[in-house]
Amino acid sequence: MATKFFSDRNLKFVLYEVHDVVSLTQYDYYAEHNRKMFDMVLKAAGKLGKDLLFPVFEEMDRNQPELVNGEVRVHPSVCKIMKEYGEGGWITARVPFDLDGEQLPHLMADACEYIFQSANYSANAYPGLTTGAANLIETFGSKELYDTYTPKMYKGQWQGTMALTEPEAGSSLSDITTMAEPTAEDYYSIKGQKIFISAGDHDGVDNVVHLMLAKIEGAPVGVKGISLFVVPKKRFGEDGRLVSNDVVTSGVYHKLGYRGCPIAQLSMGDKNDCRGWLVGKPHNGLKYMFLMMNSARIDVGLGAASMATAAYYAALDYSKTRCQGRNVSQKNPGLPPVPIIEHADVKRMLLFQRAVIEGSFSLLMQCSKYLDLQHVAGDAEKTKYSLLLEILTPVAKSYPSEMGVQAISQGLQCLGGSGYCDDYPLEQYYRDARIHPIHEGTTGIQAMDLLGRKVLMQNGQAFNLFTGELQATISTATKFPNLQGHAQQLKDALANLENVTDHLLEIAQTQGPEYFLADATLYLELFGIIAVSWQWLLQGIAIQKALIDGAKKKDLNFYHGKMIAMQYFLEYELPKTLGLTARLMRSDGLTVEMRTELFND
Amino acid sequence: MATKFFSDRNLKFVLYEVHDVVSLTQYDYYAEHNRKMFDMVLKAAGKLGKDLLFPVFEEMDRNQPELVNGEVRVHPSVCKIMKEYGEGGWITARVPFDLDGEQLPHLMADACEYIFQSANYSANAYPGLTTGAANLIETFGSKELYDTYTPKMYKGQWQGTMALTEPEAGSSLSDITTMAEPTAEDYYSIKGQKIFISAGDHDGVDNVVHLMLAKIEGAPVGVKGISLFVVPKKRFGEDGRLVSNDVVTSGVYHKLGYRGCPIAQLSMGDKNDCRGWLVGKPHNGLKYMFLMMNSARIDVGLGAASMATAAYYAALDYSKTRCQGRNVSQKNPGLPPVPIIEHADVKRMLLFQRAVIEGSFSLLMQCSKYLDLQHVAGDAEKTKYSLLLEILTPVAKSYPSEMGVQAISQGLQCLGGSGYCDDYPLEQYYRDARIHPIHEGTTGIQAMDLLGRKVLMQNGQAFNLFTGELQATISTATKFPNLQGHAQQLKDALANLENVTDHLLEIAQTQGPEYFLADATLYLELFGIIAVSWQWLLQGIAIQKALIDGAKKKDLNFYHGKMIAMQYFLEYELPKTLGLTARLMRSDGLTVEMRTELFND
Repeated sequence: MATKFFSDRNLKFVLYEVHDVVSLTQYDYYAEHNRKMFDMVLKAAGKLGKDLLFPVFEEMDRNQPELVNGEVRVHPSVCKIMKEYGEGGWITARVPFDLDGEQLPHLMADACEYIFQSANYSANAYPGLTTGAANLIETFGSKELYDTYTPKMYKGQWQGTMALTEPEAGSSLSDITTMAEPTAEDYYSIKGQKIFISAGDHDGVDNVVHLMLAKIEGAPVGVKGISLFVVPKKRFGEDGRLVSNDVVTSGVYHKLGYRGCPIAQLSMGDKNDCRGWLVGKPHNGLKYMFLMMNSARIDVGLGAASMATAAYYAALDYSKTRCQGRNVSQKNPGLPPVPIIEHADVKRMLLFQRAVIEGSFSLLMQCSKYLDLQHVAGDAEKTKYSLLLEILTPVAKSYPSEMGVQAISQGLQCLGGSGYCDDYPLEQYYRDARIHPIHEGTTGIQAMDLLGRKVLMQNGQAFNLFTGELQATISTATKFPNLQGHAQQLKDALANLENVTDHLLEIAQTQGPEYFLADATLYLELFGIIAVSWQWLLQGIAIQKALIDGAKKKDLNFYHGKMIAMQYFLEYELPKTLGLTARLMRSDGLTVEMRTELFND
Repeated sequence: MATKFFSDRNLKFVLYEVHDVVSLTQYDYYAEHNRKMFDMVLKAAGKLGKDLLFPVFEEMDRNQPELVNGEVRVHPSVCKIMKEYGEGGWITARVPFDLDGEQLPHLMADACEYIFQSANYSANAYPGLTTGAANLIETFGSKELYDTYTPKMYKGQWQGTMALTEPEAGSSLSDITTMAEPTAEDYYSIKGQKIFISAGDHDGVDNVVHLMLAKIEGAPVGVKGISLFVVPKKRFGEDGRLVSNDVVTSGVYHKLGYRGCPIAQLSMGDKNDCRGWLVGKPHNGLKYMFLMMNSARIDVGLGAASMATAAYYAALDYSKTRCQGRNVSQKNPGLPPVPIIEHADVKRMLLFQRAVIEGSFSLLMQCSKYLDLQHVAGDAEKTKYSLLLEILTPVAKSYPSEMGVQAISQGLQCLGGSGYCDDYPLEQYYRDARIHPIHEGTTGIQAMDLLGRKVLMQNGQAFNLFTGELQATISTATKFPNLQGHAQQLKDALANLENVTDHLLEIAQTQGPEYFLADATLYLELFGIIAVSWQWLLQGIAIQKALIDGAKKKDLNFYHGKMIAMQYFLEYELPKTLGLTARLMRSDGLTVEMRTELFND
């Protein structure tokens, strides 16, 4: 059975050779770090993944969470995992030194998360959500909230969640009905229902801290009336001991996959005794939540790429060891069968996975780097990186999610019938991965965000910055003979994207938002393929530099293999933009004009 | 919860208006049938689906088969289902009158199977496999074999299987090692292992009859040494009672989906007491099996289209009833939310499903019609239909299988988070459907069959017949003003297909089979999209005729909805051929030249 779940070599290539994480140490904020320390951090993360997370990957799936006596029972290793993350400083990896954190660049912390999520996506969700929730309190909460909740969360003793979705308001947050009634004390009285809350309740921790959206009585309708609250499962009673806060787990979902982590349904205030503490100012909840949400979206993309990475290595292992059939030019049935990796179609399936996954991963690390630069750069630069992040977030969330599903499907296909059976892990990856195009905003929601908000924002400045980055890469790539043809391919595709964008903006003017946004999902797909082609060209430049600088002999196979993966992306994936471009230029409003009653019969 | 699992209206449209099943009654062999009888047959099939199969669709998944005391225990309804199929004449639907069958056209029998498989794919597998196995005995077996086995199989008392795959020979049948040693009696002594045998053992029947491939001792190596045997689980003892035939069920697989039907691992001859009876002549086994296999392949395509149909109606039902969000041009958050089907992106996802599924279904019915015509037409025509079937079989197997997975994924996506949970059936369809690109020859195998055998066969005659059919349809479509543009789209795509084919044939000449077949899977995809576009144009012609002839008012929504589904296919799916064409014309041998060691790291 495969034991490799990520490539340390590729991880270091992307971190050090493509995105040059060490360059961040020139900024004061990261000046205490260096390459050696980064290597140690990666090594520690790899060890945690290998020893703690990967061994229970299957077990956590087979023993899914159940609601027992009002509490969600999870796999016994969850408690240990939370503690080890806490003690190892993984929950505070991005927290500043002066708050006792590790102050790691996002690029590094996210790379570690890539390792963890490759090892066991569900297991990492518990501390991952805790990290996000604690960050929200740290950033917007009062000192009192910070002191009350974050220490326990940082230590992995308390779980953090983001509680947004409601039965009647899934993607449409303006319709939430959870109410917060002011009291004479420092807290609000909370009443409502939440659904689909990841790690929303479990027995692996002493308490659960919900970062919950609710409306204060009398608030404006719509998203402008949403506030953010800390609503713990248990609150401190008068004697300083934890008592129930009237948050009841009314159900736990049985899901296709992602079964290692419970998704709970919660009911607050059934006994009129649920207390919530306001985070920041009233009615600013959605703005605050989007700080967490944006990073959660990129994190979903990263989770998708991680999972697909592990699936790829499982498929690769099988393809190298399973012997069957002979080369198509070999007619002699008396010869022994060959490993299936020698068949061109199997190689194609493996290259597809690799091209899609390693391209996605590089894009995700690009976002992490922008996040770091946004934090440490001067004011003018800050705006630039912030806009680049804005436009790339929906892409970094959805491209890896959509293509991760397809990559894993091809991985499963490499195993044939065995891929369909639970003797091999592919079927679990296939089930697990299907959550990514859904949670933290479906692909359709991301598409509306990209075309309807991000492309338009600040008079198209984010879009122009994006095309500027691509042009710079194209221009550099043109200097390398082995990349010139591919640079031209990306140049042509980028011109198509610009044409399509102009065309759609005109539709917006002449035909209004419905026609403008009707094919937003296809636009997102087009944008994603081009963004990932850009990342492959960046990787190509790093490869060429390494080869020209005289790469070590032991690295040659790695670089040559990567070059072929790059070519695969540009030769097999990039051409998909032709069909997308043709379709997007039509704008016939077919879906807008399709009426509900025509779906009958 | 949705209760509709197929569209009776669309089924009749395809059968009567597109493929004109009634025209078959002009041939003597089908002269006893008429429209009224066909309607009654469809009604009976619909009732069986609704009353017997659909109600246990979920239950059979939740209670998967288990190996208990050496026998596979299945859901209790299996016994009843087999009996009702037997008594209802569904297993003998295609069997001639003079063998006490119903002598239905394949077009009708397959349409009924579409209903059954929409209702419950796993449940239909039991009688479906029995039908195929009995047909093999009927066609190639001796009278004695026929008399011994088929009556019980026709009645649904005994299960039939096709037993090909072995642990070390999955897709590569030339490597099977199950041996058949001649004895002094009329039987052979069988010894070997088989894996992945659908319905290979279960307690819902009295006996299981395996149509099994094995090699007679001393047979030539490779596929030319394969013979076909009847190997029952139990044979008649000297006293006429059933006794064990030394076929042991050594395991049952736990699978991603398709859980209502057991997939067994069998061991024959552990006690040297397994008897097999030769079917037809020695060493002709693979040829015989391919009669069953070809129809089994089309059946997989049909199963995929069926399952995707049921999933579509579940997604449609949800989309019509679930209210969330508002129209993008509507800014007032105080207005009530609308059913999600009013959002353009949801309509797009539903149209995608419909376009892919209804196009696939029409292609499958086209194949069934060719099968009928091949049976009843004059000798010259027979060759034509047989060649058309040959070239369409890999396409009819793989296009619906690959696109069925994607269609169901989009259906799941319509439900958002609910699609991921087992409160709704989409997650089950998603798991079930993934088997189709694998069983009865993976998509990669179908691709090699299409490009490596079918396109080349008889100097390209099958290919020419196929393009001839398309040209005839294009020519007819051009007469309808509303179809002219679409006829031109198909004409252009067909020209691309011809160019690509010529180009690849040249590669075969100049660079050999490996380069020729390297992108066969992409060629299959290209071919499939064009074949389904053709079927949509055929449907478009039928719609236009109906509208011109003055369709009934109650049918107008149906026809208009179908026209939009047709347009969707031609506007959103057909453009995908642009990227495929661009790629296929490159033939850079990227995957051929990728070496195994470059996958390291």
